Amino acid sequence: MSELATKSKRATASADMLLNATSALMAERNSVDVTFADIAARSGMNSALIHYHFGNKAGLYKALLERDAGSTFAALDRLVAADMPAREKLRHHIAGVIKTYHRYPYMNRLIGALSIDSESETARFIAERFTRPLAEAQAAILRQGVEEGVFRKVDPMLFHFSLVGACDHLFHARHSLKFAFGVEEIDDDLQRRYADHIAGIVLDSIAA
Amino acid sequence: MSELATKSKRATASADMLLNATSALMAERNSVDVTFADIAARSGMNSALIHYHFGNKAGLYKALLERDAGSTFAALDRLVAADMPAREKLRHHIAGVIKTYHRYPYMNRLIGALSIDSESETARFIAERFTRPLAEAQAAILRQGVEEGVFRKVDPMLFHFSLVGACDHLFHARHSLKFAFGVEEIDDDLQRRYADHIAGIVLDSIAA
Repeated sequence: MSELATKSKRATASADMLLNATSALMAERNSVDVTFADIAARSGMNSALIHYHFGNKAGLYKALLERDAGSTFAALDRLVAADMPAREKLRHHIAGVIKTYHRYPYMNRLIGALSIDSESETARFIAERFTRPLAEAQAAILRQGVEEGVFRKVDPMLFHFSLVGACDHLFHARHSLKFAFGVEEIDDDLQRRYADHIAGIVLDSIAA
Repeated sequence: MSELATKSKRATASADMLLNATSALMAERNSVDVTFADIAARSGMNSALIHYHFGNKAGLYKALLERDAGSTFAALDRLVAADMPAREKLRHHIAGVIKTYHRYPYMNRLIGALSIDSESETARFIAERFTRPLAEAQAAILRQGVEEGVFRKVDPMLFHFSLVGACDHLFHARHSLKFAFGVEEIDDDLQRRYADHIAGIVLDSIAA
């Protein structure tokens, strides 16, 4: 391996380690409020490396979102294009969204944190990179279901917000789960039951 | 009016002004991240008064939650106890939750911010004061619907999280609404359509 390739591989590895540490801290704390000092301590790396790799906090957050969610869009495109009935596509989609929020429970708060200044280019970028493709995929599945005669017509925008909110909230509100219901942890069984519950509600309610 | 009563009235008025300023800032910024200095500037009052009235940030947040949500529980209790079919109760409940989130879009983030340290007494208090009564009212309406033979049995915990998340997300994700859908503002018409959409989904899907 050339010296340059080795250096670039090392740089990628150190960026990855910083993203891993950030992700772990956000998941544990159930909050996106982590400092560069926290990330440095967790990763055992110098916080100057965060500046080197990501520039600032927004850069780090964007890189983490890209790592966690960016790769899911290729799979979503394949699902939309697949030769599969719309009901089945929607069920797969809901299970996929819930699996993603289970793994990265901070995802929607990360999007929120990057969008607080709603006039900013970052807020626009985040909506165009993540929210719009998700909403468009859902709208395509809804259209297919209407064409197949299995879904009634629903407003795809209202559908998008209600579905994302429903999928997200269990993971978002872990504190409520603990104190209001005595459930300490979201295990794979609860994740699956939640996906089945939401798919059941959604599919029953939009049936033609 | 006695001097003491006048003093006490003045104190209440100044606490109210601080809560109004905090509420307005959180709604405008779509974030609970406001400083005492921001609140002082907005209210035209000295930030020492925030410490005087509320102690610390958690005290201020709790007082704001109590102001915004505390009073809704008496109405919720009346709704649960009312002589009214379960379907109608659930429809009223959903409209009420959405109206509350429309008015106070920061509410669930406030609950989240007070619950970050999930071992804390504050997190426990918040869940017991706000989340549990809400979930219990929903469970009572679900039970009534099953007894009436109009609802099928659903897991009230999963129902709670999916309903709250669905109701909240439109208001929570105003940035997505703007950039992914070109909708700048949530007006009363959109609020009503969202409530109808969610009530439609929920009532259709849990029909016996």
